[in-house]
Amino acid sequence: MEIKKQNEIEEKVVDMEGAKNVRMQILTKGAGNFIMRRFIVGKDGYTPLHKHEWEHEAFILKGKGIVVDEGKEIEVEQGTVIYVEPNKEHQFINKSEEPFEFICVIPSQDKSCPR
Amino acid sequence: MEIKKQNEIEEKVVDMEGAKNVRMQILTKGAGNFIMRRFIVGKDGYTPLHKHEWEHEAFILKGKGIVVDEGKEIEVEQGTVIYVEPNKEHQFINKSEEPFEFICVIPSQDKSCPR
Repeated sequence: MEIKKQNEIEEKVVDMEGAKNVRMQILTKGAGNFIMRRFIVGKDGYTPLHKHEWEHEAFILKGKGIVVDEGKEIEVEQGTVIYVEPNKEHQFINKSEEPFEFICVIPSQDKSCPR
Repeated sequence: MEIKKQNEIEEKVVDMEGAKNVRMQILTKGAGNFIMRRFIVGKDGYTPLHKHEWEHEAFILKGKGIVVDEGKEIEVEQGTVIYVEPNKEHQFINKSEEPFEFICVIPSQDKSCPR
């Protein structure tokens, strides 16, 4: 078993084109089937508006944010679950003053997202 | 995209042998590669002490609990990440007064766990 506290795990700045004020942690790569990541989107930050061939399963841990679903802005908050299908354009935006944090699980085959 | 609030998702009682005072939600089955679940372990509750051939990736959402790792009791709390390897005996226990909640992601091939 591997047990870690989230504040002991290295944070990386997400420097993808189209990203602003986003940090990310690899929480666990597990057995190599899927990767659990934590994102921290700061004030006025956003992830890239993008799509890719693999799905996302996300859970909002903290704060409030916007998810862009094919051009539509949807408000989400702590406790919201989001499933992004493969090849669907999406983006996470923080328009609030507080950090917006979420877990995002991807299959290990997805090489297009931070990992 | 599918967007749901956790309190709108059906909760099921985990009635496996060896479980006490545990409820579970399927947050999303995504694209069929892995399943994101949320567990709520009530006061004096516990999941079964068991093992199976598939891994778990877990993240503690709320409260404090105990993870049993091969007979050793380890305290965990909000923000702890736990990776349980395939075929490793494990159990989640709540010895506190407050609910102990965690996300647990499993591969879809795992038919031995609530899903």
